[in-house]
Amino acid sequence: MHVLITGGTGFIGKQLAAELLRMDEFPFEGAAAENIDKITLFDAFAGDRKWSDPRVEVIVGDIGDAQTVARIVERADIVWHLAAVVSSDAEVNFDLGMKVNLQGMLNVLAALRAKGMRTRIVNASSFAVFGGDLPDIVTDRTDLKPKTSYGTQKAIGELLVADYTRKGFVDGRSLRLPTVTVRPGKPNKAASTFVSSIIREPLSRQPAVCPVRAETPVYISSPRRVVEAMIRAMCLSDETIGAERTIPLPGLTLSVDEMVAALGRIAGPAAVQLIRWEPDPAIQRIIDGWPTRVEAARAKALGFKTDKSFDEIVRAHIEDERVTKWWSQ
Amino acid sequence: MHVLITGGTGFIGKQLAAELLRMDEFPFEGAAAENIDKITLFDAFAGDRKWSDPRVEVIVGDIGDAQTVARIVERADIVWHLAAVVSSDAEVNFDLGMKVNLQGMLNVLAALRAKGMRTRIVNASSFAVFGGDLPDIVTDRTDLKPKTSYGTQKAIGELLVADYTRKGFVDGRSLRLPTVTVRPGKPNKAASTFVSSIIREPLSRQPAVCPVRAETPVYISSPRRVVEAMIRAMCLSDETIGAERTIPLPGLTLSVDEMVAALGRIAGPAAVQLIRWEPDPAIQRIIDGWPTRVEAARAKALGFKTDKSFDEIVRAHIEDERVTKWWSQ
Repeated sequence: MHVLITGGTGFIGKQLAAELLRMDEFPFEGAAAENIDKITLFDAFAGDRKWSDPRVEVIVGDIGDAQTVARIVERADIVWHLAAVVSSDAEVNFDLGMKVNLQGMLNVLAALRAKGMRTRIVNASSFAVFGGDLPDIVTDRTDLKPKTSYGTQKAIGELLVADYTRKGFVDGRSLRLPTVTVRPGKPNKAASTFVSSIIREPLSRQPAVCPVRAETPVYISSPRRVVEAMIRAMCLSDETIGAERTIPLPGLTLSVDEMVAALGRIAGPAAVQLIRWEPDPAIQRIIDGWPTRVEAARAKALGFKTDKSFDEIVRAHIEDERVTKWWSQ
Repeated sequence: MHVLITGGTGFIGKQLAAELLRMDEFPFEGAAAENIDKITLFDAFAGDRKWSDPRVEVIVGDIGDAQTVARIVERADIVWHLAAVVSSDAEVNFDLGMKVNLQGMLNVLAALRAKGMRTRIVNASSFAVFGGDLPDIVTDRTDLKPKTSYGTQKAIGELLVADYTRKGFVDGRSLRLPTVTVRPGKPNKAASTFVSSIIREPLSRQPAVCPVRAETPVYISSPRRVVEAMIRAMCLSDETIGAERTIPLPGLTLSVDEMVAALGRIAGPAAVQLIRWEPDPAIQRIIDGWPTRVEAARAKALGFKTDKSFDEIVRAHIEDERVTKWWSQ
């Protein structure tokens, strides 16, 4: 079986690929497991990781180019579509966001449709499809009201995946992801990038900036749970998923100071002191527009799991990223 | 002032243009009224109507072609975007629906953005953005769950208009329209076309087919109210409309047999007997997925009006279309 991951050299793509290599064969609910013979990581960037496993091929190209995408998609048996321009970047570079997040999605769906195989695709969406005036608890039926171009493009992606699935062109599943933390690597142009920075940088004895108020609630999930969810969404049968093709994922709700308290418990007060608090009204406004409490009833019924605690998330990051402990605990 | 109506030779486009010609100058809330110097009706078809008024120009072209649209939009000061492939047609001819309803919308928005004038655009959307499992009363916050490609494309149009407006590229307003009846002319490929046929054909002493059960509820508006709403949506100021750019319109809810009863009251039992009842499960399924009771709180607060009764709608059709009375009443 040939796996395609768009946005494959991004951090979720890399972790998903690594997990697939470990699994060796992929379980499909109600069908035979399949060997993973090849994993194509398609991305705009080659990325920093060297893959020694001969099953992995990195292909650099433009998801906004229909012909490129048709060529890449043609060989794939299953697709994870993770390629995206992130929130703040899509806000500043509107054309780039439209090209990658909207035209890229259209290109992938058109290429899959042309194959005529009803190929299974897991599409990464986001709770940024919501914004502004929200109920206290966002349910599976809360209406889409994006307040960013990124959220708009993600909402459109969900609608397209649902319609292409209904038409029988693909077998699509969109996962609405919480803010993923702790992301390894460097800050990116997501409005939410600080949610990782304020933990990751202090753990590496580097300073970090927190642009929002300490009491700001955030809705998060760890990279491990997100990779698990990506795999689960691909594994579940058509019948189990049913007609509704968007799955808002469960996550943890906690305030920034609860996150910082966990950092303190694990790495001590010197780590906490590396955080500089510099309010940025533009970031605060975007973050305030996102949901903080989410019911995620359907996802829970489908067996998608949340993290147990933020301490557990921080410890998993230290383990997965082989963080050198500079603190004495 | 130069007015552009896309889909301008369609029946709403024609009635809107005729009304604009009667008005002579267009009132803008909180600003000076503007003379209507020119009305461009852009459409894929030239249409049957001859316009004697020199202010009207019909231009035939492809809304799916970005360069054509850029040329047409460049000269327009205000735009009504009515061009669409209707529901059943977009379901059967998926590519055509995507080209006209999605790419056409993108082309119009991109062309307006390129002008850099924050041009005002009224976009015709539809309650087909809903489908399937719906609350008893659809509110302004009911979540988009289209169950047709047409509904999907209209939902995407609403999201795009909202985001282009938020970004300051256009001043957009999307009107979510009920099923419009009584449409003049011939049946089209809308799943809802029978809602007009069962009245229009008997009034012209022609047979009509009703493909749904008599007790099926429909949510409707007359052409007069829709044209009024189109004008009102263009007239209202930015401040009055506010941040939320989709306006679900008020309408009447009544069952098919209540509509037929009104036909009987006005044109007698011989007219009613011209309706043949031939259930079509595909049409029934689409119609059953559409909302039947709609709150439309915001539209009502903004002064959008409903029809008083279905009898009034039928009488207006007889008057507007100069229907020859063959019945003795």
